[in-house]
Amino acid sequence: MNIVVVGTIAFDDVVTDHGTVNDTPGGSALYFSAAASMFVPVNVVGVLGDDFPVDILEFLRGRGVNTNCLDIVEGGKTFRWGGEYETDMNIRKTTNLELNVFNDFNPVLDEECRKSKYVFLGNITPELQLEVLRQVESPEFVVADTIEVYIQNDREALLKVLDKVNMLMINDEEARLLTGEHNVITASKALMRFGLDYVIVKKGEHGSILVSKDDLFIFPAYPIDEVIDPTGAGDTYGGAAMGYIARANSIDIETIKSAAVYGGIVASYTVQDFSIDRMKTLTIDDIDKRLEIFRNITSF
Amino acid sequence: MNIVVVGTIAFDDVVTDHGTVNDTPGGSALYFSAAASMFVPVNVVGVLGDDFPVDILEFLRGRGVNTNCLDIVEGGKTFRWGGEYETDMNIRKTTNLELNVFNDFNPVLDEECRKSKYVFLGNITPELQLEVLRQVESPEFVVADTIEVYIQNDREALLKVLDKVNMLMINDEEARLLTGEHNVITASKALMRFGLDYVIVKKGEHGSILVSKDDLFIFPAYPIDEVIDPTGAGDTYGGAAMGYIARANSIDIETIKSAAVYGGIVASYTVQDFSIDRMKTLTIDDIDKRLEIFRNITSF
Repeated sequence: MNIVVVGTIAFDDVVTDHGTVNDTPGGSALYFSAAASMFVPVNVVGVLGDDFPVDILEFLRGRGVNTNCLDIVEGGKTFRWGGEYETDMNIRKTTNLELNVFNDFNPVLDEECRKSKYVFLGNITPELQLEVLRQVESPEFVVADTIEVYIQNDREALLKVLDKVNMLMINDEEARLLTGEHNVITASKALMRFGLDYVIVKKGEHGSILVSKDDLFIFPAYPIDEVIDPTGAGDTYGGAAMGYIARANSIDIETIKSAAVYGGIVASYTVQDFSIDRMKTLTIDDIDKRLEIFRNITSF
Repeated sequence: MNIVVVGTIAFDDVVTDHGTVNDTPGGSALYFSAAASMFVPVNVVGVLGDDFPVDILEFLRGRGVNTNCLDIVEGGKTFRWGGEYETDMNIRKTTNLELNVFNDFNPVLDEECRKSKYVFLGNITPELQLEVLRQVESPEFVVADTIEVYIQNDREALLKVLDKVNMLMINDEEARLLTGEHNVITASKALMRFGLDYVIVKKGEHGSILVSKDDLFIFPAYPIDEVIDPTGAGDTYGGAAMGYIARANSIDIETIKSAAVYGGIVASYTVQDFSIDRMKTLTIDDIDKRLEIFRNITSF
């Protein structure tokens, strides 16, 4: 089944212990699409300037991504994010943020996008998330991500989003901020009170927590010796998880569990290179190889 | 098979978000013995003043712990540690440290202690760890713990200890400090270069990493909604793991894996109360109950 995703398409300027990259293609919708398109066809909704490299859009189309719902603004400048990671890569600071064409983004979904059954609302404003969801004709499973700035400054609209989605995928700091609970297990469970069916809380290198009404599932991250750049790890996690669910086309705890494991494994590849570089060459065989290793190193 | 453990017997003054306790029985050897004695007979080596509560020693004896190698100094004051935990319980600061009788500690093992096959060198000075090990007649499996202060100030002696032990059990910060590697996976593997057969790196609420020459095993911590006091979690982890291995009386990767899982589960009970209070009432049934839940929430 098809997925529709909305999020940012961006230029990123990233500094990590392993190097500095500038003007590198990024954004939640790009990372998500690169991962999800390994599993099912993806419709991507977003806005970008005509300064964005054409070869990246061609890469997406080559992976079966429908880019017709991307609004390419003539003469416009693409959204830009700058970030710097500490040696402890769980900690980063945003050094630059230019909304550019994102300021006037007015998502319009074509028929194919509207007919998608699986909806992923990437980290854009809650208002835009709601607008995209409104245009989808009969969504079957809706997943949302969000970030600190909307939890802090746009909580009311965010709660309206949560009321309409089936699953929330956020990181541990966001879960704490949204619930006011410091303990990550308590926070993960507390998120269920917002009317969700499933919650996935991502703890970066420490793994993830999946909560449903009746179940709790906890698993480590795939071990990576050398993390080059964590940017986009969460978005490719979401993309692979959503792609897995849409391909399975069934919503039950066992499917979501496996989806989360797939998400973590694809994210483990993302962080081994800058931008979506590793996603370009990644194969399902690569994923299955790490899945097999992951089973071995986590079973007892 | 019998275990011999050396470590501190202490009074702890602890502050956490859940309360403050003073003069509460603690120390690595006490926590370790309380946990390990659920599995096999334990011989405990250490020093304390006659200000230490007799009922705690009686509790240990009731659990089959040989306390004859405890040096009870008449008129002496027991070692004292004070600590304060942040809301993020992975972070604590030492607010007080009084060596007291520990200043002149000269461990002497009786025949029963000397004949132990399983040796646990708890976090005391590397010199004392070596002295205890020297007195054990024919150790079959030796495990050591250590802490930051010895890694920083007594590295040479510590490396001599590592050269003589089979397994090291430390936390992630200590692993980073000892190896100079920031990435915890890299650090865990790098510890093997000190001549160890096995390494267990404990990440608190984020679980553990077990490394051997050929294997890597990663597993989460048992999820706890409300952590009352993390003091002694690592020591009861070590106690239960060592107890499990000594009871199995076999040294192979599968036994060590299961031992580490048992360690994590017993530690999850420890943190739900102050001091060794939860250890006093804990049963093997309790442990097996959480083991069953743990299997369910971690398998996919």
